[in-house]
Amino acid sequence: MTGRTTQEHMEQGKDTHATAQPGARKASLIALDWGTTSLRAYLFDAAGEVIDTRVSTAGIMNLPVPAEEGGFDAAFDEACGVWLAQSPTLPVLAAGMVGSAQGWLQAPYVETPAGEDALVGGIVKVRAACGVDVAVVPGVLEPGALPNVMRGEETQIFGALSAMNATSATSAAGDSASAQATLIGLPGTHAKWAVVEGARIARFYTFMTGEVYAALSAHTILGRTMKRPAAPDTAAFLRGVSVAREHGSAGLLATAFSTRTLGLTEQLAPDEQPDYLSGLVIGHELAGLEAVLARRDVALAACAPQLIGADALCERYKLALAQFGCTGAHLVRHATERGLWRIAVRAGLVAAS
Amino acid sequence: MTGRTTQEHMEQGKDTHATAQPGARKASLIALDWGTTSLRAYLFDAAGEVIDTRVSTAGIMNLPVPAEEGGFDAAFDEACGVWLAQSPTLPVLAAGMVGSAQGWLQAPYVETPAGEDALVGGIVKVRAACGVDVAVVPGVLEPGALPNVMRGEETQIFGALSAMNATSATSAAGDSASAQATLIGLPGTHAKWAVVEGARIARFYTFMTGEVYAALSAHTILGRTMKRPAAPDTAAFLRGVSVAREHGSAGLLATAFSTRTLGLTEQLAPDEQPDYLSGLVIGHELAGLEAVLARRDVALAACAPQLIGADALCERYKLALAQFGCTGAHLVRHATERGLWRIAVRAGLVAAS
Repeated sequence: MTGRTTQEHMEQGKDTHATAQPGARKASLIALDWGTTSLRAYLFDAAGEVIDTRVSTAGIMNLPVPAEEGGFDAAFDEACGVWLAQSPTLPVLAAGMVGSAQGWLQAPYVETPAGEDALVGGIVKVRAACGVDVAVVPGVLEPGALPNVMRGEETQIFGALSAMNATSATSAAGDSASAQATLIGLPGTHAKWAVVEGARIARFYTFMTGEVYAALSAHTILGRTMKRPAAPDTAAFLRGVSVAREHGSAGLLATAFSTRTLGLTEQLAPDEQPDYLSGLVIGHELAGLEAVLARRDVALAACAPQLIGADALCERYKLALAQFGCTGAHLVRHATERGLWRIAVRAGLVAAS
Repeated sequence: MTGRTTQEHMEQGKDTHATAQPGARKASLIALDWGTTSLRAYLFDAAGEVIDTRVSTAGIMNLPVPAEEGGFDAAFDEACGVWLAQSPTLPVLAAGMVGSAQGWLQAPYVETPAGEDALVGGIVKVRAACGVDVAVVPGVLEPGALPNVMRGEETQIFGALSAMNATSATSAAGDSASAQATLIGLPGTHAKWAVVEGARIARFYTFMTGEVYAALSAHTILGRTMKRPAAPDTAAFLRGVSVAREHGSAGLLATAFSTRTLGLTEQLAPDEQPDYLSGLVIGHELAGLEAVLARRDVALAACAPQLIGADALCERYKLALAQFGCTGAHLVRHATERGLWRIAVRAGLVAAS
């Protein structure tokens, strides 16, 4: 979830994953989703079910004490100390910005095409002050003239593939996801769209959608006339998507200004402006996605994207995708936990359930 | 110049217009370019030459005292009191955001296609506390599904046309500009591109280029790794333009992230990143302009745009335009003063020189 919870309208929803009473079942793994602004710790039983979850704001840019004064250890102890006191030998796996240059220990990027084995092969281990080894999952780099990077999303993507396999009726060996290309979307501050081919992340794209929305709203003239609506305004949102789709070639720099001019000409009320602008930026993201897919002869409308993220935001993306003729999108839940478990199994930290 | 001086790298250049010794020649007109963040006051002689200039930061959002406590009068007196003390009956003309809903007196927009006569017909007058009438030039509105507005730029545009007429060898009646379509660009915080046909502003486009650049630099992750270069880095700028041009269909939300990933992969130094990003946003503006012109079967490469703005910024635009095959651009200087004078003549505030 790295860096993807800073924007109010795109805030990660509450975790609705049911967790059993801790201690009721035997713990087998601690797994961390450790991003820039938050740390989520999961305690798994031997069957790969989450039996406890702890959430803190101790992201790598928000440690309780500075990194050079043991900030990572302090955050780790605070999140997982209780679990480790009960089971000191639990294996620990971490994914996200914790493996970046600013993290606890840098886990160099694995290059695309990146499968699970490559991720496992790129795992680095940092010894915590309490004596526990923490295995850190590497991010993925797509090299080239315009490189792309991800950290944390690779784990969610493999979690989504795991969910697809689990629910696929046609999958005998649990490997149907590898049979054809799959488009996976991760909306948020830095939205990612990944193309998975043969169970490997073949390529991916980043759109600064959430962060640009926040910057436009808070730090340009567009925010001055905006008023937050009492409830999300889907009609205004879809209007924005539609404008971005029809006038996509003019670009966001041009269409964004219509938030103001439609207001000045009394065609867009102040409390419609936030959702209209949200529709514009998401619409431009999807127009851009459609264009980059088309370069490889893939039609967005023909895809059935898997969406990973907060429910409300993913539902918005489903509506927006439908305007692009793409009606087959659906949400994948618990992709992070599933991905962490899957990688831990592949890495031999736990036995497959 | 309304609202177009907030960004450091797009800051309005120093006024290099030579001004004669005030009082040496008889004053005939006071004209104001009164925007959001600044007020420029010009004193003209009877030949239309500027004989004195006064510049203050008393834009309409930065008045010395609040508007309801006489802020406009205070700013006006501070800028022009000395001149009016010498010549109390001088006519006064003002253009820019001073005529907006947040201004001294609202001058309702004139709709496109908008010629000089329409602008003159839309002038409203506000009586200053000192007894002087200030004539306020209206802005221009292009109605439609995505409306566009300008205030201040219309005056600069007619100033540019005046300059074209003055330098045109083929113009017997000083009216060559009306013979064919002219593309006029006004780079800045909210860059405008206007198409003038038959001496009227036929249509125009707004790109939030300068403001988005500032917001991306100061309020997103892109700014964190940037370092201001000692001198403008033209190579990095052109690299950004080139990426925007080649990958324009992916959109700015996607290409902007390359500022970060090229940095992470050591292909773009911290002090190259500001100019690279500047090239990206200006490149996307020109790609958008090319697209909207193409919809009307106009090729950007075949245009000879007139550029109005700070010299350094316009020179950058010339370089960027050349990457789009448009090599005929040139700068128009003193468009604001020329436009104010031209409208004052047309309005009968002064006699033609």
